[in-house]
Amino acid sequence: MGFTCKTGLPSQVSSSRMIIDCHGHYTTAPKPLQDYRDSQIAGLKDPSHVPSKGTLKITDDQIRESLEGAQLKFQRERGSDVTIFSPRASAMGHHIGNETTSRNWTEHCNDLIYRVCSLYPQNFVGVCQLPQSPGVPPKNSIAELERCVNQLEFIGCNLNPDPSGGNWAAPPLTDNYWYPIYEKMVELDVPAMVHVSATCNPNFHTTGSHYLNADTTAFMQFITSDIFKDFPTLRFIIPHGGGAVPYHWGRYRGLAQDLKRQPLDEMMRNNVFFDTCVYHLPGIDLLFKIVPIDNILFGSEMVGAVRGIDPTTDHYYDDTKRYVDKVSLSETDKRKIYEDNTRKVYPRINKRIPRKA
Amino acid sequence: MGFTCKTGLPSQVSSSRMIIDCHGHYTTAPKPLQDYRDSQIAGLKDPSHVPSKGTLKITDDQIRESLEGAQLKFQRERGSDVTIFSPRASAMGHHIGNETTSRNWTEHCNDLIYRVCSLYPQNFVGVCQLPQSPGVPPKNSIAELERCVNQLEFIGCNLNPDPSGGNWAAPPLTDNYWYPIYEKMVELDVPAMVHVSATCNPNFHTTGSHYLNADTTAFMQFITSDIFKDFPTLRFIIPHGGGAVPYHWGRYRGLAQDLKRQPLDEMMRNNVFFDTCVYHLPGIDLLFKIVPIDNILFGSEMVGAVRGIDPTTDHYYDDTKRYVDKVSLSETDKRKIYEDNTRKVYPRINKRIPRKA
Repeated sequence: MGFTCKTGLPSQVSSSRMIIDCHGHYTTAPKPLQDYRDSQIAGLKDPSHVPSKGTLKITDDQIRESLEGAQLKFQRERGSDVTIFSPRASAMGHHIGNETTSRNWTEHCNDLIYRVCSLYPQNFVGVCQLPQSPGVPPKNSIAELERCVNQLEFIGCNLNPDPSGGNWAAPPLTDNYWYPIYEKMVELDVPAMVHVSATCNPNFHTTGSHYLNADTTAFMQFITSDIFKDFPTLRFIIPHGGGAVPYHWGRYRGLAQDLKRQPLDEMMRNNVFFDTCVYHLPGIDLLFKIVPIDNILFGSEMVGAVRGIDPTTDHYYDDTKRYVDKVSLSETDKRKIYEDNTRKVYPRINKRIPRKA
Repeated sequence: MGFTCKTGLPSQVSSSRMIIDCHGHYTTAPKPLQDYRDSQIAGLKDPSHVPSKGTLKITDDQIRESLEGAQLKFQRERGSDVTIFSPRASAMGHHIGNETTSRNWTEHCNDLIYRVCSLYPQNFVGVCQLPQSPGVPPKNSIAELERCVNQLEFIGCNLNPDPSGGNWAAPPLTDNYWYPIYEKMVELDVPAMVHVSATCNPNFHTTGSHYLNADTTAFMQFITSDIFKDFPTLRFIIPHGGGAVPYHWGRYRGLAQDLKRQPLDEMMRNNVFFDTCVYHLPGIDLLFKIVPIDNILFGSEMVGAVRGIDPTTDHYYDDTKRYVDKVSLSETDKRKIYEDNTRKVYPRINKRIPRKA
């Protein structure tokens, strides 16, 4: 167990390059958000309760305070410029309540992201949660996606492949069931990060297995489907470094070959991207050795699943920029990871955050 | 995407070292086995049908023929000595029918493994399938485990953490629900490989995501449980290189730390082992860099999930010995991987297959 990978020295940061973190959630939201959710959930226990959207009272100062000591501090300390920011993934809780519960909660969460992005327009760009609910067709999420993109200037969405929260009761992402939301994503030119939420299945641990399983599951669905023939410009980010996929790249290459499907890099090329949310250097080394450079986006998910400091490095586990900087990459490739690929996958970011001069 | 890992030269094979493959399934069984299963499943459609165990007619020559051109050929070609052999994992199909269906099928499958091991006592040692069934308590599998170990000289079992086949409806492996079978495993001094079967949930692909998800899921269950305080000598093999775990080792170290659980290597030490069923060299390199050498057992799962030849190496994807031989390891460590660790985890092998002089 020694971290003795061969790596290059960190390259000098080009002054004209931006560092975009494609994967951040508002995990530090002010307490009234959780109070609202608790009250909403408590209301579900009363069958006579008619759920109303209600109001959420959070001041601008509370928002500033929630970010200044956390995401903004880490942006400064770690040297990233902007975070693509969405509501807390584990709190989406699509399995809780019904469609109305999910819609009310989702609208509040997205509105809060909009306020964050308005207060710190240089630091955050919004990605929305969708009002998914078990058994409710994905087309019912179109209105919220349109609202977020057209009115709130969001640049993408998080799509939960398992709104049941660990029972995996919806059709696969490659089923026609999901096509209406894909049509809208293509029309709006926004990608989706495939991201499950908390699990209510005691077999799974939300951040320790359910997240990674969903990543792995989605990738295999894509291998066995013609979804990208139907939607040549549809784009998915599979977070957490692609789940188990890079470690088992030989397995996937072999399965694709046995099944007479496209080679993996061809399947992924314009449609499937992995982030760098892998919390140790040997994992990041593997990711960069295996996955085409054009399909990797810098991401950290800070402040997220793993909040501690690694005693073997004295740095935060989720300070993924430190690992990426240790990988031997050309300046062109580094720019792809940190900025260019993300601008390609989330093109609406270009209007919100122009390139540096 | 270049496989340019730094690796040592293959070491000379020590004449006194054996190479034990801990992970082989009888995927090439003669056709009458599948005919029996098809007939059994067809019978389930008729509500008036009373399932009987029935008979399975397979000759010794059919068994020889099914192995000579496959597992035995590969043992010779690849240079392994003995395979720990169990019924085809994907065909266990615990979710099909009821407890009687599962028991009848399981007994036939295990009996066939016994015949294989009797015909080729130097090449195969048996591990049993268990007659699990959704909603049926694991204690109901004890009789078959005892029969296989005490009468058929089997040395372990495969334990399916999800007999529902992808609905994950059973309690976690760390729940008291499973304790009766663990008590028997400890008493018999046999380990279990955590191995799911085919999935009937269209979200998952049996070998492409369900297997790996189960591996990842089990590991996180172990992190968050005191099961090995309750059973200090209970041993699990998590196959397929530990699922997503080595690639996300930093995530797991960090989660264990945040949750105030033991460090991973302490948790694993005497209880949790990974095999080497990772089908490319960079993945194997990562496994050996990350996981304690005492917790890795050589395995290939040939002839299994991936049957093709890798065009980048001109060798079978699942010829994992080629990758392991390229990892720079001391002779002592190589002996651990290929023989000593497996003898420690499956001690009943020592009676069946003595060490070379």
